[in-house]
Amino acid sequence: MKKRRAAVVGATGVAGQQFLVALENHPWFEVTALAASSRSAGRTYGEAIRDPSGARRWWCVEEPADAHLKLPVQDASQLDPGSVDVVFSAVEAEPARELEPRYAAAVPVLSTASAFRYEPDVPLVQPGVNMVAHVPLVERQRKVRGWKGFIIPTPNCTTVALVITLKPLLDAFGVKRVLTTSMQGLSGAGRSPGVIGLDILDNIVPYVPKEEEKVEKETPKILGHLGEGAVAPAPLSVGATCTRAAVLEGHTLSISVETERPCDPAAAAAAMRAFRGDFAGLELPSAPKRPIIVHDDPFRPQPRLDRDADGGMATSVGRLRAEPTLGHGLKYVALSHNTRMGAARGAVLVAEYLVKASLL
Amino acid sequence: MKKRRAAVVGATGVAGQQFLVALENHPWFEVTALAASSRSAGRTYGEAIRDPSGARRWWCVEEPADAHLKLPVQDASQLDPGSVDVVFSAVEAEPARELEPRYAAAVPVLSTASAFRYEPDVPLVQPGVNMVAHVPLVERQRKVRGWKGFIIPTPNCTTVALVITLKPLLDAFGVKRVLTTSMQGLSGAGRSPGVIGLDILDNIVPYVPKEEEKVEKETPKILGHLGEGAVAPAPLSVGATCTRAAVLEGHTLSISVETERPCDPAAAAAAMRAFRGDFAGLELPSAPKRPIIVHDDPFRPQPRLDRDADGGMATSVGRLRAEPTLGHGLKYVALSHNTRMGAARGAVLVAEYLVKASLL
Amino acid sequence: MKKRRAAVVGATGVAGQQFLVALENHPWFEVTALAASSRSAGRTYGEAIRDPSGARRWWCVEEPADAHLKLPVQDASQLDPGSVDVVFSAVEAEPARELEPRYAAAVPVLSTASAFRYEPDVPLVQPGVNMVAHVPLVERQRKVRGWKGFIIPTPNCTTVALVITLKPLLDAFGVKRVLTTSMQGLSGAGRSPGVIGLDILDNIVPYVPKEEEKVEKETPKILGHLGEGAVAPAPLSVGATCTRAAVLEGHTLSISVETERPCDPAAAAAAMRAFRGDFAGLELPSAPKRPIIVHDDPFRPQPRLDRDADGGMATSVGRLRAEPTLGHGLKYVALSHNTRMGAARGAVLVAEYLVKASLL
Amino acid sequence: MKKRRAAVVGATGVAGQQFLVALENHPWFEVTALAASSRSAGRTYGEAIRDPSGARRWWCVEEPADAHLKLPVQDASQLDPGSVDVVFSAVEAEPARELEPRYAAAVPVLSTASAFRYEPDVPLVQPGVNMVAHVPLVERQRKVRGWKGFIIPTPNCTTVALVITLKPLLDAFGVKRVLTTSMQGLSGAGRSPGVIGLDILDNIVPYVPKEEEKVEKETPKILGHLGEGAVAPAPLSVGATCTRAAVLEGHTLSISVETERPCDPAAAAAAMRAFRGDFAGLELPSAPKRPIIVHDDPFRPQPRLDRDADGGMATSVGRLRAEPTLGHGLKYVALSHNTRMGAARGAVLVAEYLVKASLL
Repeated sequence: MKKRRAAVVGATGVAGQQFLVALENHPWFEVTALAASSRSAGRTYGEAIRDPSGARRWWCVEEPADAHLKLPVQDASQLDPGSVDVVFSAVEAEPARELEPRYAAAVPVLSTASAFRYEPDVPLVQPGVNMVAHVPLVERQRKVRGWKGFIIPTPNCTTVALVITLKPLLDAFGVKRVLTTSMQGLSGAGRSPGVIGLDILDNIVPYVPKEEEKVEKETPKILGHLGEGAVAPAPLSVGATCTRAAVLEGHTLSISVETERPCDPAAAAAAMRAFRGDFAGLELPSAPKRPIIVHDDPFRPQPRLDRDADGGMATSVGRLRAEPTLGHGLKYVALSHNTRMGAARGAVLVAEYLVKASLL
Repeated sequence: MKKRRAAVVGATGVAGQQFLVALENHPWFEVTALAASSRSAGRTYGEAIRDPSGARRWWCVEEPADAHLKLPVQDASQLDPGSVDVVFSAVEAEPARELEPRYAAAVPVLSTASAFRYEPDVPLVQPGVNMVAHVPLVERQRKVRGWKGFIIPTPNCTTVALVITLKPLLDAFGVKRVLTTSMQGLSGAGRSPGVIGLDILDNIVPYVPKEEEKVEKETPKILGHLGEGAVAPAPLSVGATCTRAAVLEGHTLSISVETERPCDPAAAAAAMRAFRGDFAGLELPSAPKRPIIVHDDPFRPQPRLDRDADGGMATSVGRLRAEPTLGHGLKYVALSHNTRMGAARGAVLVAEYLVKASLL
Repeated sequence: MKKRRAAVVGATGVAGQQFLVALENHPWFEVTALAASSRSAGRTYGEAIRDPSGARRWWCVEEPADAHLKLPVQDASQLDPGSVDVVFSAVEAEPARELEPRYAAAVPVLSTASAFRYEPDVPLVQPGVNMVAHVPLVERQRKVRGWKGFIIPTPNCTTVALVITLKPLLDAFGVKRVLTTSMQGLSGAGRSPGVIGLDILDNIVPYVPKEEEKVEKETPKILGHLGEGAVAPAPLSVGATCTRAAVLEGHTLSISVETERPCDPAAAAAAMRAFRGDFAGLELPSAPKRPIIVHDDPFRPQPRLDRDADGGMATSVGRLRAEPTLGHGLKYVALSHNTRMGAARGAVLVAEYLVKASLL
Repeated sequence: MKKRRAAVVGATGVAGQQFLVALENHPWFEVTALAASSRSAGRTYGEAIRDPSGARRWWCVEEPADAHLKLPVQDASQLDPGSVDVVFSAVEAEPARELEPRYAAAVPVLSTASAFRYEPDVPLVQPGVNMVAHVPLVERQRKVRGWKGFIIPTPNCTTVALVITLKPLLDAFGVKRVLTTSMQGLSGAGRSPGVIGLDILDNIVPYVPKEEEKVEKETPKILGHLGEGAVAPAPLSVGATCTRAAVLEGHTLSISVETERPCDPAAAAAAMRAFRGDFAGLELPSAPKRPIIVHDDPFRPQPRLDRDADGGMATSVGRLRAEPTLGHGLKYVALSHNTRMGAARGAVLVAEYLVKASLL
């Protein structure tokens, strides 16, 4: 298979760097263009991520690829989308609103930005959950907007562990309502300036701006049904409290669910363990073997031990038990990697499916 | 007022040391006896807390008092309760089951142990909430058990922020059910070995053994009604998930409440701000001016900034907002200091009330 | 005594906030003017430290004083120095170079900035070490520059623990050379953006830009002799490696010293314990009782336990032992609070001395 | 090649678990026996590392191998060394003194314990530095002690980064004296109880018991010359201060060196980069490609970014600069992984060399 040419936009930020890591040595994609703000444009990537003091502003544990360090950084507003087959966008919501349509006019855009997540003709795609079911909405998007390409956003990083673990419960028992409290890692906050050390060491910050609304809104859409040119949200309500913890990476969620039908913890564990995800059998390079790993050890999942499970693409679950306070109630703790399945690698996985589905 | 002579039992542990700090220079109490396991007995306190490598095993930020360092440590099983007016017990549940009745035969025992919390003739006392209302149950306890003294346990450190903030909501709006997720500081786990650094740095541990049951059982008892010789638990159900965070001190709780009657966040804030606690007007030295501090800043409360509010005796609340997922629903974040109001200083405050009530 | 009117310039930064805390309820000074960059000017201080999301950007554990929150923030370049008796400057080196002379033309300026530290007519003053001896240099500064006031900078926060502990060694044994490795707390890096959490959790950063040169240059000047209108640096050489650790506040220094004359650890401890500092007997409100606290416990000093010793104004020393590798060698660990004695409160202490010396 | 049968003794501790990880899927060794204290004996390894609360006491990020979990744990004092080809010992110094000779009577013993490091007939072996040169000393050990096997200890984890980086300097410039301050990760302290979270969060502990003497004594022995049946220590003196930092793994050392001959930083960097280690060309599976990685970025090395370099087997160096305070002086920061090259994997690498050298 000839490798698709990919552009990474927002390449100097944390999320953009995670795209570069996810795409290094990828069997199907090759990064041939990098773009960022005009500040970085005109320099090589290696130069662009060096700050005035000489330090390299690189935020992944993996070293940057030599090939990427040598690529020139283009001004995102000048990037010619016709020069690539696909664009991976890791910019903030505001610039995304302007940039992504320009790219989508020409080619598919996979985005971690929230700008288009809530548009009716835009599928909000969580691999494993609604990828196969909702991607077809892009045909309507193309028609409505007159684009050759399209935009597919992936969910907020905190939504990920929630929808992946709710999906098998919804299918087997029905879900009426969900309450969740997140304890989120720092990497989700990026680097400009992100969370400063003075604020988070020996501390918890009980607020992550704009996060809760996203979790509450995205979950029903992702779990909803694609009908005639639009997604009917799943009839469940979600209440979220999002906090920031002194953890580098990995979002931990305490989740309480009221199910439609009785659901004991063993049955829930069985449903989660049996869940294969909609990428099963498709042989997509970035898909995890199992979307959900269920632990019996009550001290798991822990961010440090479990965030990298299956390359950061599996969600880990533990402490499944009844929640009598909610009637047919169930509670558990779930953990997913916020910059792997929860961001760049999740979007790359969608792109892999697009290749399979001949949409890319 | 002549100072009451106090014994601290379990004096070498974290909780016992917190008692020593709470009682240093106390206007009404003077520590005249220290007890611990037979291992430590026969040495001065200063010697007993020195380990073989020469390091002092002292866990509070305040330095130990010279007077305490010179006191001899007695074997807890040999301590003569007749030599003091009151015993503060900071031992584990198992030894408490044996030691505390021996002391209570002679004098009042204030305990942070869980051993007697759930006995029908034992009041489980949270200052501010049910101190004045439930302390009278000790009369029945004395009669039933034939003791001259009595045992009054204080709640689990995680229950504290919950019952203090629920009390004004219960009084004003009624409370049907409560779901909470805690993010607990390390000091609650003590030191033998407590939580080791290798387990908690860059991490969250999703399980605190035996904690959730305590929170779920203690909350209705504390908020209940003292009838004829027993407490009728409040008719509300509580579901808890307790986790450990990389925080030194302070327990943060994300709390969701379904109230009986409509309760908007502003009304809830007003009720919490108006709450004075049952120690109001009694002039007890350790009582906070306000039991609850309500923050408008959405980034508060934070353990590091707020745990020491009013000497660690006030509970801080923030992020009050509606929780439509629960009908008449409300959610907020609460924080209290787990070794101040949540342990030693809370028990000292109860002892101060006993003095006022002529029970000590 | 009528309180002197004080301006705090750079009031919205971490160092400026530390000045506000140090000056709250000060018996001799009252903050009557606040200044910052033009961005903050025209608002009250309370408004100026609130960010767009509604959060208060306040970095001290102490709450800000109500009186300070209501003060208007002036543009530092417009501040009229004639409206106050003294200026406390907490700006960065570059703006200091321009602003401080403008203020010093009218009134004394106490500064934590490095801009003027190395000028020959400017005393670099560490209270306890060279305050009484070097302050007279301001007379020459006034004459040379034609100012009514003058500038007195305090040292870099890492220099502080070094010079305070070297002073008694120098006096008693002579000092030929010093090697030090610092492990510095985060608060020294300020907040714009300071050290981000993602960079320091589970980590050490082996470089603090521009820090080592300052330590190496400032130490001989502070320990030097004020002769005719200039300071002759002490004839000792200093080599420093400065690193950043996951510590909120407090700079820990591992120090190795080669002394001129034999100096065993017990003699060094005795010299440090006997040291009283040049503020002894002057009854300055912010002066510590003892400049140096020497620990026998080999596990001390620790930042968390010792940084607040005597209000953050005492330096703690431990692990005094011979260093045979250096001939007449001695090594120890020293700790001082980088934003108390190491910054704002150190500068306030100098101002107190100026009042005593009738220079303010 | 037929795989050698290996026993891991002290298998339930942190160091023992690191041996299991290092030996999983090893091409030359197969773990066929596990031993620990009598407490663990008689259970499978999977059972032995489960604590009463149901939690698995496993301390590596890598999951334990299924094959290891099923192995029975033997009582270390009963283990038959004749049942294996080699013993990897990860016990504490005291039991090592008794157990290791018993094993060495029959087979080679590779040990991370300090018990025999300082015996004249025992080579203290750091791969890359003195492995090829000092291993022949085992012939004398066998003869003196009448053993069929022998004991080869590897150095203290803090000595490792020091000797590896000093070796090329010694060879090229001569080394007279060395001063070092370490900032050590938590995993070196093991788990019983190791460093508790309450002691290290937001903190530095300035003392690691018994560590400094080891570094000071081991460095000259490792860098020494093997003459007639004994090692003549290298004529250099070492002074160490060892501290514990809030870092999970990786020991960071600030190192100052006085060389015999002039040595500018560029020449030092060149010597380190050219250094190949004595395992070069031997094709040992665990050997790093380069023993030393030299960084130009002044913000490197950092424990979190660099400890896993080349599987935790490379030492990372940065901040090479002149140290005029020491005459021909040089200073730098070095980092090595304390439980990879600094413990288990280092010992496995020695075992690989023994196979090559037909000593195993």
